Amino acid sequence: MDTTEDSLRKALAEKQSAVEGQGNAVRALKAAKVAKAEIDAAIGTLNALKLEKSAIEQQLQAAVSGNGPDSSVNREAFRQAVVNTLERRLFYIPSFKIYRGVAGLYDYGPPGCAVKSNVLAFWRQHFVLEESMLEVDCPCVTPEVVLKASGHVDKFTDLMVKDEKTGTCYRADHLLKDFCNEKLQKDLSITAEKAAELKHVLAVLDDLPTEELGAKIKEYGIVAPDTKNPLSDPYPFNLMFQTSIGPSGLLPGYMRPETAQGIFVNFKDLYYYNGNKLPFAAAQIGQAFTNEISPRQGLLRVREFTLAEIEHFVDPEDKSHPKYPEVADLEFLMFPRDKQMSGQSAKRIRLGEAVSKERLRFRQHLANEMAHYAADCWDAEIECSYGWIECVGIADRSAYDLRAHSEKSGVPLVAHEKFSEPIEMEKLVIAPVKRELGLAFKGNQKMVVEALEAMNEKEAMEMKASLETKGEVEFYVCTLEKNVCIKKNMVTISKEKKKEYQRVFTPSVIEPSFGIGRIIYCLFEHSFYMRPSKAGDEQLNVFRFPPVVAPIKCTVFPLVQNQQYEEVAKVISRSLTAAGISHKIDITGTSIGKRYARTDELGVPFAITVDSTSSVTIRERDSKDQIRVNVEEAASVVKSVTDGQRTWDDVWSKFPHHSSGSTGLNFGQQKNTIHCDSHILAS
Amino acid sequence: MDTTEDSLRKALAEKQSAVEGQGNAVRALKAAKVAKAEIDAAIGTLNALKLEKSAIEQQLQAAVSGNGPDSSVNREAFRQAVVNTLERRLFYIPSFKIYRGVAGLYDYGPPGCAVKSNVLAFWRQHFVLEESMLEVDCPCVTPEVVLKASGHVDKFTDLMVKDEKTGTCYRADHLLKDFCNEKLQKDLSITAEKAAELKHVLAVLDDLPTEELGAKIKEYGIVAPDTKNPLSDPYPFNLMFQTSIGPSGLLPGYMRPETAQGIFVNFKDLYYYNGNKLPFAAAQIGQAFTNEISPRQGLLRVREFTLAEIEHFVDPEDKSHPKYPEVADLEFLMFPRDKQMSGQSAKRIRLGEAVSKERLRFRQHLANEMAHYAADCWDAEIECSYGWIECVGIADRSAYDLRAHSEKSGVPLVAHEKFSEPIEMEKLVIAPVKRELGLAFKGNQKMVVEALEAMNEKEAMEMKASLETKGEVEFYVCTLEKNVCIKKNMVTISKEKKKEYQRVFTPSVIEPSFGIGRIIYCLFEHSFYMRPSKAGDEQLNVFRFPPVVAPIKCTVFPLVQNQQYEEVAKVISRSLTAAGISHKIDITGTSIGKRYARTDELGVPFAITVDSTSSVTIRERDSKDQIRVNVEEAASVVKSVTDGQRTWDDVWSKFPHHSSGSTGLNFGQQKNTIHCDSHILAS
Repeated sequence: MDTTEDSLRKALAEKQSAVEGQGNAVRALKAAKVAKAEIDAAIGTLNALKLEKSAIEQQLQAAVSGNGPDSSVNREAFRQAVVNTLERRLFYIPSFKIYRGVAGLYDYGPPGCAVKSNVLAFWRQHFVLEESMLEVDCPCVTPEVVLKASGHVDKFTDLMVKDEKTGTCYRADHLLKDFCNEKLQKDLSITAEKAAELKHVLAVLDDLPTEELGAKIKEYGIVAPDTKNPLSDPYPFNLMFQTSIGPSGLLPGYMRPETAQGIFVNFKDLYYYNGNKLPFAAAQIGQAFTNEISPRQGLLRVREFTLAEIEHFVDPEDKSHPKYPEVADLEFLMFPRDKQMSGQSAKRIRLGEAVSKERLRFRQHLANEMAHYAADCWDAEIECSYGWIECVGIADRSAYDLRAHSEKSGVPLVAHEKFSEPIEMEKLVIAPVKRELGLAFKGNQKMVVEALEAMNEKEAMEMKASLETKGEVEFYVCTLEKNVCIKKNMVTISKEKKKEYQRVFTPSVIEPSFGIGRIIYCLFEHSFYMRPSKAGDEQLNVFRFPPVVAPIKCTVFPLVQNQQYEEVAKVISRSLTAAGISHKIDITGTSIGKRYARTDELGVPFAITVDSTSSVTIRERDSKDQIRVNVEEAASVVKSVTDGQRTWDDVWSKFPHHSSGSTGLNFGQQKNTIHCDSHILAS
Repeated sequence: MDTTEDSLRKALAEKQSAVEGQGNAVRALKAAKVAKAEIDAAIGTLNALKLEKSAIEQQLQAAVSGNGPDSSVNREAFRQAVVNTLERRLFYIPSFKIYRGVAGLYDYGPPGCAVKSNVLAFWRQHFVLEESMLEVDCPCVTPEVVLKASGHVDKFTDLMVKDEKTGTCYRADHLLKDFCNEKLQKDLSITAEKAAELKHVLAVLDDLPTEELGAKIKEYGIVAPDTKNPLSDPYPFNLMFQTSIGPSGLLPGYMRPETAQGIFVNFKDLYYYNGNKLPFAAAQIGQAFTNEISPRQGLLRVREFTLAEIEHFVDPEDKSHPKYPEVADLEFLMFPRDKQMSGQSAKRIRLGEAVSKERLRFRQHLANEMAHYAADCWDAEIECSYGWIECVGIADRSAYDLRAHSEKSGVPLVAHEKFSEPIEMEKLVIAPVKRELGLAFKGNQKMVVEALEAMNEKEAMEMKASLETKGEVEFYVCTLEKNVCIKKNMVTISKEKKKEYQRVFTPSVIEPSFGIGRIIYCLFEHSFYMRPSKAGDEQLNVFRFPPVVAPIKCTVFPLVQNQQYEEVAKVISRSLTAAGISHKIDITGTSIGKRYARTDELGVPFAITVDSTSSVTIRERDSKDQIRVNVEEAASVVKSVTDGQRTWDDVWSKFPHHSSGSTGLNFGQQKNTIHCDSHILAS
């Protein structure tokens, strides 16, 4: 709870009652027909109180909706600027736009598609290749049996309410969230206690059981936002897209809600592929599908998305990772469950250099918020204009999935650890005496034998004790649904020492699951800024993408429309292609300033401008600094800075500088760190 | 028609009737009770004839099923060897195997996934980047309206027959094809004419209309293969996976059957992105789905697959491609429609050097075989053990899709060509006189007006002539489903001269659509070979993948288990990682020969063996040749050959050779082209 806001609400309530009190006083004076001067004085006091109240209201309004640079108004304006640029430059496009689109489905247009493909290539290099993960690629269409075993058929749901008259569907938690936020931001008359209650509801929203959610909706009188009709009670809606495999209509299937299941069902083969050794990680990049009830938040909540998932298969008794010591000292913003429930904010638990990001934090899931398969879950959240957004879900799935698939398929999904030498272990031995059991139970003998053999150690040892003291014991047989009487001669129970050569166990799974679309959207927002044009008459948009993810690494412009310059541009283009650098030639007659602005708005880090047939300039997007290089070298210089072999500062210090408006050489006029590379001068 | 087979069938029929004739003769002699010697002689002749018949039968059997290296028996044995290796080494895995799989769904395991990702990266570099295509990435989930407009809801079907008792579904054409092939290969008694008929059915199979297909199935008495029950008539089954978008159940959707539609509906934005200029190409890589009736042929006919599609948007009056002159002289195996219908084989139309592949041909679709959207279609087919397989479909889709989406969405999907100066054109003007039409047709006026305005030039000019001569004319109005009488005062029809400033037209689309999974499967088969082990006691499998697609570029082996060698291996591994070369360390104690065999079977082109702390050997997979390089250089040498900067022959000629079994240097002992690189010797 924000203490400023809290004290303002209290001050407002006091001032309100002061106003009411003074109002009553004025009315009393009027009724008593006292002297006008006295009445006027009382009205003066009333008006002063009203002014004070109004001032507090303004402060409160500012406190709840914000006026600062991080206020919700400014956040929305910023988001609108980003989204307008993204849509206009076709980073993304609402899918099937000419048919008025489908909520929650988006296309990546050419630059967005290039960014995505760069992000995925980087991800694959960073995780799959550098950590030798086993990458697999499984279909999206998945038969029901797999998702029944994984629990998705029964539990992959969101709570939905329906407009009782029109049947329109809403996500129950979204309606409650909107109500609380609206009330907190727009209704200044609520008490500090009420505000605290609403904030608590928001904090525990993801944790509310169905009945409590329904009760809150009723209590607050929430109705359908479009029609104001009453709403149904919340009920679970399964979020998987259902389909049918094959022509018979008898094999139901779903579009996978995560890529992970494809990895789990292959565990046995992957374990074998890894030389029957733990730990190992398997990874998959691919589409996943969630039939959201009412998608909103643009690219963040969509019905189809690219996941990049890793499943670390580990020994449950040793979950250490060989690289852990390398990162153990890094520190992050952490937001554990207890801090959230008590309305506190995220804590920086330690602070390292490399990954210290103000806008990245790790938040623990609340108990009811976790997916059905998770033993613990932390989200890596990135802050953007929508608030803190889950971009990577990191779940400890323990042995949940492998056990579920083992049971359903009958194929053991286990790992083996050979002991360096055999270990002597006590082992329970239950030996039913079939002859006696047959005489006693006839046709039911088999069921009784199975039930006896299925006893765990505790049950068996209790039976042994009872048989030894009493000679017989009542025993419940599930499959017969009744008790039978087991006598001492029907079973022998003992503990024997046995040599064990190996340990057999179900591995635990630690899963980091990356929502690629969300990461890309946050990248868009974090990379976006505006700066004034040269003439100062307009604001220009820039995406400061690092070269590794920039959709195009370089543009090539002939300074003016001119056959010779265009030839040079083509030569440079060919050498860029040979070097594998994605680029674009722009030979339109538009002014060079406009062309730079266009390319900045696409986030292209470098522009080569052809202003002579022997040398050209290379401009860096954010500093707008330009260097001069000879034509033959242009591609290799751009390659070296986009590949990360050297920084812009490196090349800036090695090549002659160019200031726009001049084609001459300018050494050392714009920056301090100048070092002339002799072979340039010699060329 | 194979003439050997043809003449053998004729010879067999003649011999058969000779045998029958002689059999009759023997029986006649026996009935006539002639001398035993005479009967024996006749029996001798009969046996000789039977022997001759049997010899012809054997020849015919060999001719139809083949015994040669390319016979169906050998093809199947070869395929089995490839598939066993692919499955054992997890190139691919039947999806959901622990649940006994789902027909037509496969996973790529780690090496298969790496090959796929390399093929796609190469495709993207070759097409998207080098030709500056506009790449997009659209969802798989597609609302019905899009696929209704594209024709898929109505026409994307295969003909299915059902077992009339069990309801099991079969593809009608597959049953007919199997019947014909089986008959031709196993029934030697059929006449040459019957054989010719069956071969004709096979040739035109893809071209048969529903009724003819049904009639043939009836005529040949084809029954359900599993139960021998009678079959239903063939009927169309829609091959799209259906689903429902959102929670209401009111918005039907499908999993896209091709990625192309996502591009077409974005035409307007992409045209704008390209500066409102034609031609341009858009591309998309992604999953597509076909709910096959009864998939078979392993990786070749699957229910979910990766497509890489290109849509070239061109001016229908100028379909030239700027790169065409560069490839115009290449020559291919071409198999046009008329050659197929007449049972001839593919013709090499010209022969160039670069793309002359014996196992690649271009086959034109038969008229009924073409997809509903295609004006013409040629498949690039690759030969593998299943025969000639469509791997790239190249369709002239003309304006079909853009027109369909324009009509359905009401958004014009057109291109504009500005004339350099305005052109005077005659334009048809149809001006219905609404007052007169209203008086005559009352409530139907609107329909009549629309029908009049929709006339094309020919119809309008005929009406004009009739009205001028007769004063009135019968006119059929579709929407009213009847003729109405149009009088002279109801419409004026004229041709006016108008200045046109631009041409507005619907672009044509040329689409090459690459089936990535099929290309990869053919790559597997074409790369596979077996060679004897060193001891000669077993056959070892090798995939001769080119480095660009090889799943792993390099393995690193310490020759023996040894701390020092393992350290060197790790140093080399780190430099390979830094160079972006995917690789694997194998520190198991297995013999070096076994480890080479393992790595050859994965198609890894190079192996670095650490046999000292200063220098190591690099072995090339196919030649098994080894060179010696110093430790610091190993990664860069491997990088240069995997990146294609130099060939193995280049490095072979530059580095000292190593013959296995020795750790000494061997110059010039294994090959002729030796050139010592001085800095190696100096190190």
